[in-house]
Amino acid sequence: MQRRDILGLAGAIGAAAALPGVANAQRSLEEGRFPKPSGKYKRIGTEAAFATQPQLDGFRDIGKYLAEGADLSFTQILLGDSDYAKDMTPRLLNIGEGRIAEMDDGGVAMQVLSLTSPGVQLFSADTAVSIARESNDILAEAIAKHPSRFAGLAALSPQDPKRAVVEMERAVTRLGLNGFIVNSHTDGHYLDEEQNWPILEAAEALGRPIYIHPRSLPETSIAPFRPYGLGGASWGYAVETGTHGMRLLFSGVFDRFPNLKIVLGHMGEGIPYWVYRFDHMYETARRNWGTGGLVNTPSFYLKRNMMITTSGMFSESVLKYCLEVIGPDNIMWAADYPYQNNREAAAFLDAAAIPETQKIQIYSGNAERIFHLN
Amino acid sequence: MQRRDILGLAGAIGAAAALPGVANAQRSLEEGRFPKPSGKYKRIGTEAAFATQPQLDGFRDIGKYLAEGADLSFTQILLGDSDYAKDMTPRLLNIGEGRIAEMDDGGVAMQVLSLTSPGVQLFSADTAVSIARESNDILAEAIAKHPSRFAGLAALSPQDPKRAVVEMERAVTRLGLNGFIVNSHTDGHYLDEEQNWPILEAAEALGRPIYIHPRSLPETSIAPFRPYGLGGASWGYAVETGTHGMRLLFSGVFDRFPNLKIVLGHMGEGIPYWVYRFDHMYETARRNWGTGGLVNTPSFYLKRNMMITTSGMFSESVLKYCLEVIGPDNIMWAADYPYQNNREAAAFLDAAAIPETQKIQIYSGNAERIFHLN
Repeated sequence: MQRRDILGLAGAIGAAAALPGVANAQRSLEEGRFPKPSGKYKRIGTEAAFATQPQLDGFRDIGKYLAEGADLSFTQILLGDSDYAKDMTPRLLNIGEGRIAEMDDGGVAMQVLSLTSPGVQLFSADTAVSIARESNDILAEAIAKHPSRFAGLAALSPQDPKRAVVEMERAVTRLGLNGFIVNSHTDGHYLDEEQNWPILEAAEALGRPIYIHPRSLPETSIAPFRPYGLGGASWGYAVETGTHGMRLLFSGVFDRFPNLKIVLGHMGEGIPYWVYRFDHMYETARRNWGTGGLVNTPSFYLKRNMMITTSGMFSESVLKYCLEVIGPDNIMWAADYPYQNNREAAAFLDAAAIPETQKIQIYSGNAERIFHLN
Repeated sequence: MQRRDILGLAGAIGAAAALPGVANAQRSLEEGRFPKPSGKYKRIGTEAAFATQPQLDGFRDIGKYLAEGADLSFTQILLGDSDYAKDMTPRLLNIGEGRIAEMDDGGVAMQVLSLTSPGVQLFSADTAVSIARESNDILAEAIAKHPSRFAGLAALSPQDPKRAVVEMERAVTRLGLNGFIVNSHTDGHYLDEEQNWPILEAAEALGRPIYIHPRSLPETSIAPFRPYGLGGASWGYAVETGTHGMRLLFSGVFDRFPNLKIVLGHMGEGIPYWVYRFDHMYETARRNWGTGGLVNTPSFYLKRNMMITTSGMFSESVLKYCLEVIGPDNIMWAADYPYQNNREAAAFLDAAAIPETQKIQIYSGNAERIFHLN
């Protein structure tokens, strides 16, 4: 979009510009497409990104030293002066009145905030530990100012699992945060690997879920996925994050940590589509080759230990499919603000032809239970 | 399973052993779980693997020289003396009476045969061209002997697109074959890449579809997908083949070759789950960054240029979802014989609560149209 188009547009729709801290063009464009949601539901957005200045400074620093990779490109976009960055970055940084005004406009009662992807996972261990801590403090302050509107997930540093666990304990017991956010792999390593078990153990012991948010595939693996922009939100993010979920399901960590809860966005990152097949192939491999070792079928753990959210997947067909194969207790509403549109996310679920009791579970009941929001 | 168990089992269920050319244990075990299908439908299995001796000899030769990779491990299993190989390899090699007896047992009227994955794609270009040609000749002979029971897809060598095109023309105009099989990437290259356009152009010109069958991800990319056996049928095959499909959808090849038809097994290798999101993200990227370049949305090409099959995905929930998002004209029945069970594949569709007219389309009508089976 050309700069003058934005100005023209902003002039034509002055109302949007009145919202504090909000750049106008893209947001206003999207707003116009969907009605303002009714006040009928208490909508809790379980995937809602924010950024902190220490995090953006960290991105700026590594951008000076690292070759361009997929995640890094994205972080550099947020630091740049494109129209997209001018719209998005201030909204990510705003965890006060500006954000609340947009939540009101989108019919969102509460957001469960999480540090935008890839969180602190591109940094060196020391930097990651430090920026996670600073960012969690900033998050806790924002929640303290608006406790009825914000909850939050703590950032942590899988680069250093021991120090991650220290921060996890602090985040729950001292800061009162509601869970944890991990942006899929860290330098090609996944949470099912033994060095990360202390993180899983801590999450279970603290009774708080880990939300596994997308990021790009490891640079060493991304070649087939990169053309035509497929490395990102159209496909590659789901491959990466779905793979992370599948590794957890097949690894046995849910036998080891039976009360651990993992949250996946984007309607489960594709995993629910495959329930029939992966159970079947798991069983076939066990019969033919003696592989396996899980106490139950992989789908058992999907239903017992995982929650999925609607972030960025505002499809009634997918929702109904997921209700059928994993049930209404395991699905939570999310918009993926500010990257996706609150109004659209609400319009989709408001209009879905599913029982009212299920809508309430998905909008608020499941999130209140899983994130201890009461 | 121990060898004496097999013998004991075979003794107990003598009927199965009477089928010619069929090893007994696994098959009989599976058979017992599902009833013999009714004769109500003309069932055309659109994904049915076979092997040829030249192909197996080729696998044996490269096994001597190459490091172990995921595909190569599988081909070496077929050459080995495990119970699995003793059951599977003879069934793959049998494209005569033995196979027909199993088809009768499973209620299958016709199989569209294709050279088992990874086809000729592990070989050097010269070997691939030669084994594809030999195997296509063997296939055409089998069809000539049983024209009402078999149709077939020609193997081809993307290692050498020019010679692949020569073989494609011969396969259709001289041998009367019904389409083509490509087992996803060839040495990390995909059909959307310009050097492979002649293959797409030939398929379009000849009016025959290309079935993109799974194989393992390229060795250079597979690391995150490999643990717990996830590199194969439980997950990695779908990632690889779904990525191939997405590359085709986003690359513009369907604007260039508007009548090209691509077939994907396993209910579309996950792509249908993502229809909402990839259209949305494609549009978002185009608006923000001026990317794109397709005449239509990606899902338009999914519906116009792609067919999916039920191979290995005998889930009524997935079927209904796919009927909703891509429609009954684009779905074909397949069992994935001999790797999956004919009876189970039939029981699933026989029992599905969908209109009778759609069942007939899926069982036979769509396949007859796409593969020119009349």
